[in-house]
Amino acid sequence: MKLISPSLLVLGVVLNMLAAFLLIPAALGYLQATGNHSDFLLSAGLASFTGVVLAITGFRHRATNLQSRQMFIITTSAWLVVPFFGALPFWFWEQGVSLTDAVFETVSGLTTTGATIFVGLDNKPPDILLWRSLLHWIGGMGIIGMAIAVMPFLNVGGMKLFRTESSDWSDKSLPRTQQLLMLMVVTYALLTLACMLAYWLFGMDVFNAVNHAMATVSTGGYSTSDSSFAQFDSISLHWVSIVFMVLGATPFVLFIKLVRHKQVSIFRDAQWRGMLAILAVLALLLTLPALSMPGETLPWAFTHAMFNIVSVVTTTGFASTDYTLWGDFAIAIFFFATFLGGCSGSTSGGIKTFRVQLCFTIIREQIIKAVHPNAILKRQYNGSTVSDEIVASLVGFLFLMAISLTIMTLLLSLMGLDLVTSLTGSATALMNVGPGLGAVIGPAGNFQPLPEAAKWVLSMGMILGRLEFLTIIVLLTPAFWRR
Amino acid sequence: MKLISPSLLVLGVVLNMLAAFLLIPAALGYLQATGNHSDFLLSAGLASFTGVVLAITGFRHRATNLQSRQMFIITTSAWLVVPFFGALPFWFWEQGVSLTDAVFETVSGLTTTGATIFVGLDNKPPDILLWRSLLHWIGGMGIIGMAIAVMPFLNVGGMKLFRTESSDWSDKSLPRTQQLLMLMVVTYALLTLACMLAYWLFGMDVFNAVNHAMATVSTGGYSTSDSSFAQFDSISLHWVSIVFMVLGATPFVLFIKLVRHKQVSIFRDAQWRGMLAILAVLALLLTLPALSMPGETLPWAFTHAMFNIVSVVTTTGFASTDYTLWGDFAIAIFFFATFLGGCSGSTSGGIKTFRVQLCFTIIREQIIKAVHPNAILKRQYNGSTVSDEIVASLVGFLFLMAISLTIMTLLLSLMGLDLVTSLTGSATALMNVGPGLGAVIGPAGNFQPLPEAAKWVLSMGMILGRLEFLTIIVLLTPAFWRR
Repeated sequence: MKLISPSLLVLGVVLNMLAAFLLIPAALGYLQATGNHSDFLLSAGLASFTGVVLAITGFRHRATNLQSRQMFIITTSAWLVVPFFGALPFWFWEQGVSLTDAVFETVSGLTTTGATIFVGLDNKPPDILLWRSLLHWIGGMGIIGMAIAVMPFLNVGGMKLFRTESSDWSDKSLPRTQQLLMLMVVTYALLTLACMLAYWLFGMDVFNAVNHAMATVSTGGYSTSDSSFAQFDSISLHWVSIVFMVLGATPFVLFIKLVRHKQVSIFRDAQWRGMLAILAVLALLLTLPALSMPGETLPWAFTHAMFNIVSVVTTTGFASTDYTLWGDFAIAIFFFATFLGGCSGSTSGGIKTFRVQLCFTIIREQIIKAVHPNAILKRQYNGSTVSDEIVASLVGFLFLMAISLTIMTLLLSLMGLDLVTSLTGSATALMNVGPGLGAVIGPAGNFQPLPEAAKWVLSMGMILGRLEFLTIIVLLTPAFWRR
Repeated sequence: MKLISPSLLVLGVVLNMLAAFLLIPAALGYLQATGNHSDFLLSAGLASFTGVVLAITGFRHRATNLQSRQMFIITTSAWLVVPFFGALPFWFWEQGVSLTDAVFETVSGLTTTGATIFVGLDNKPPDILLWRSLLHWIGGMGIIGMAIAVMPFLNVGGMKLFRTESSDWSDKSLPRTQQLLMLMVVTYALLTLACMLAYWLFGMDVFNAVNHAMATVSTGGYSTSDSSFAQFDSISLHWVSIVFMVLGATPFVLFIKLVRHKQVSIFRDAQWRGMLAILAVLALLLTLPALSMPGETLPWAFTHAMFNIVSVVTTTGFASTDYTLWGDFAIAIFFFATFLGGCSGSTSGGIKTFRVQLCFTIIREQIIKAVHPNAILKRQYNGSTVSDEIVASLVGFLFLMAISLTIMTLLLSLMGLDLVTSLTGSATALMNVGPGLGAVIGPAGNFQPLPEAAKWVLSMGMILGRLEFLTIIVLLTPAFWRR
């Protein structure tokens, strides 16, 4: 009980926050008379009631100093339970979304993946569309909070590299951590507001600006149309989106430093510069294939190349065109780009730039060691020493990712999905990107036609990837539960 | 000059060995009047002449204690130069094999990959077929020699784990290394002879027994028919092949211990047992899909499942049926199996079992560390301590592999090959397996239709994978050549 009571308390608080957010589409539904406001209110009520019960149960057994084991349970249980409450409005909705589809859509929303099972988005009521975008926005907030305060503390996937005085959960530094998290929420909200204004200024209507701003800054990818971002025939809107997708994939501590210390260190950050370099190279490589499409002009070709590669690498998942028509080279680039991810400490998923850069550091070290076997090398990244412990943790992340990808692909193939669909479907779920490749789940496709079981496997994969594998896998081992 | 002279000497010796081997198909061609014996004799003459010139040049500047830098040059230059001389008989041959195809076939032979560009093998003259098998056999010998004596010394891909008193190139222990290598050659020859006899006893004619024995023990995969091993309609021949493919993928030091010390330690070897466990699980998973084929009986289904998965995992590349017809699950299994590989210190390619096992060791360690952050763990493998240095080297191997796979796939896709062909083509080349997936290069297909440039990229990939990436990549860095 002592082990799980903090998670009950946290879960209770989170469910009540979810209930509060559910009031927003409820209000919109009431104002626009969509007839769905009672669904949202009922969902809010259920979430709130359950939340209060859990919080009271947890509060009676509350602990002060959190152990890492408790932190694993808090994090995983929140990500496993909240989606079921977030899915309620879809499930209650009279248009008949199955429980499987409702949960898939909610998990995809909260993990900011953006893979959708909704067909005919253009005709869906605004409250349903707004709830999808809100799921992204809520999820994104949870992800940054986790990346700043939880992952470095648990040293998941080499995140110890980003441990600061604030990622400590002892009584002493708790106020500082809370202050940091509060600043993070304010920054996140301001960034979303800025994105919304920019979209609106460059021609989006208010409803689209609100929805797309939330889906952009959270690197989520839900849109209000089946044609995704292709519904906006404006080159400047595409570039607004590119800028804010990149900002959403930027380490949030850099913004916080800017807000708190007026210190512009973003351009000195190795990870951020690395991500920009990767994006620039890939966009240039893709411009020629994009230009090969009939009727395409150079400005639009470059815009499409940049927009879609930024969308995939930042793991947003908007599509401004069906880039799988650009030929085999473009398809191969998008396949590998699915794994990259943006920066750690952002809403972005994937392997993340710092891990890619650490890989190159290790390769460089191995090459030097091959030539000079007795050389003593100091492993550095962004001014910090990279210990063997961090390398082992990074390697654990990559191996768990490879094994998860293998098992998920095998499971999906067992359900009759071909190699490209099962492999890229697994990859896009685990990396929280959105679109896969192939006829069904490609950027012009939809996850609706997949078998029920495949949707559950993919939902699980999205959470697994979002929690960077170890956080959830550790709970499956007997060692974890042993005293 | 001091840096490259030892490689000239070694290259000279190797080319003269190649010339000696070329006399075998020359003799066969003369006896059977195929009209090709002069091509083989001319090739032998050219190889021998070049070899003598190189050896003399190298001998004048010979060094005694070899440095690791010299070892890198010796190994890489041998693998880059010898294929061109091995390719001569194919190129000289009146039936008109292009230089590209001749080199591809030779590289595929020497690296024991077994991907072929020859169509209509059943009607090819015996001397040409025999030369293909001999390329496998010569290559296999070189690979084991390299794995026993060179890789552990250079600590390529964590091979330091297998460093023994014999993998040392100082003057003192040179005689012991030479003795070990001699024993290795004898063991290799005996194993091939045993395989040959077994094939013959179970019904193969002498010519097929000789060819397939060389292609089996070297885990190569060239056959004498377009239908590969499916030409033999005998369940016992399939099992003979399974046994000898597994033995070919077994660490050779285990055989040598058996020969020298009469010590049967093979069943205590963690890597060997790991490989057998992987093979058993995958064969069982594949039996049901194999049984789904029309007219298939359980014994044959199990045999086909076992034969083809052993063939792919040991990186032999024989096919006894088109397993891509077994459905999506089977295809996904064969896709991932392409990467596995047999044991280190054998003729097998791929990631290799010990690296897969080390990955699980690290994952296990990470899980324990997550629960007990202050736990002190001793990393063990097969009775040896796995240092952080070995982990870094293993990680370097896997990253270089991933990057090579990415770059090769992008290059192939640029030539208009689709994702499945370019991805599995790169994988099968880098892992030295043989068949890929998809309509063109699948187990029922052939590498002949690929563009010229793709064949060069794949040839380079086969050598890159065979040299475990680092050995060749290190030569491309300025740091290597700097004094």
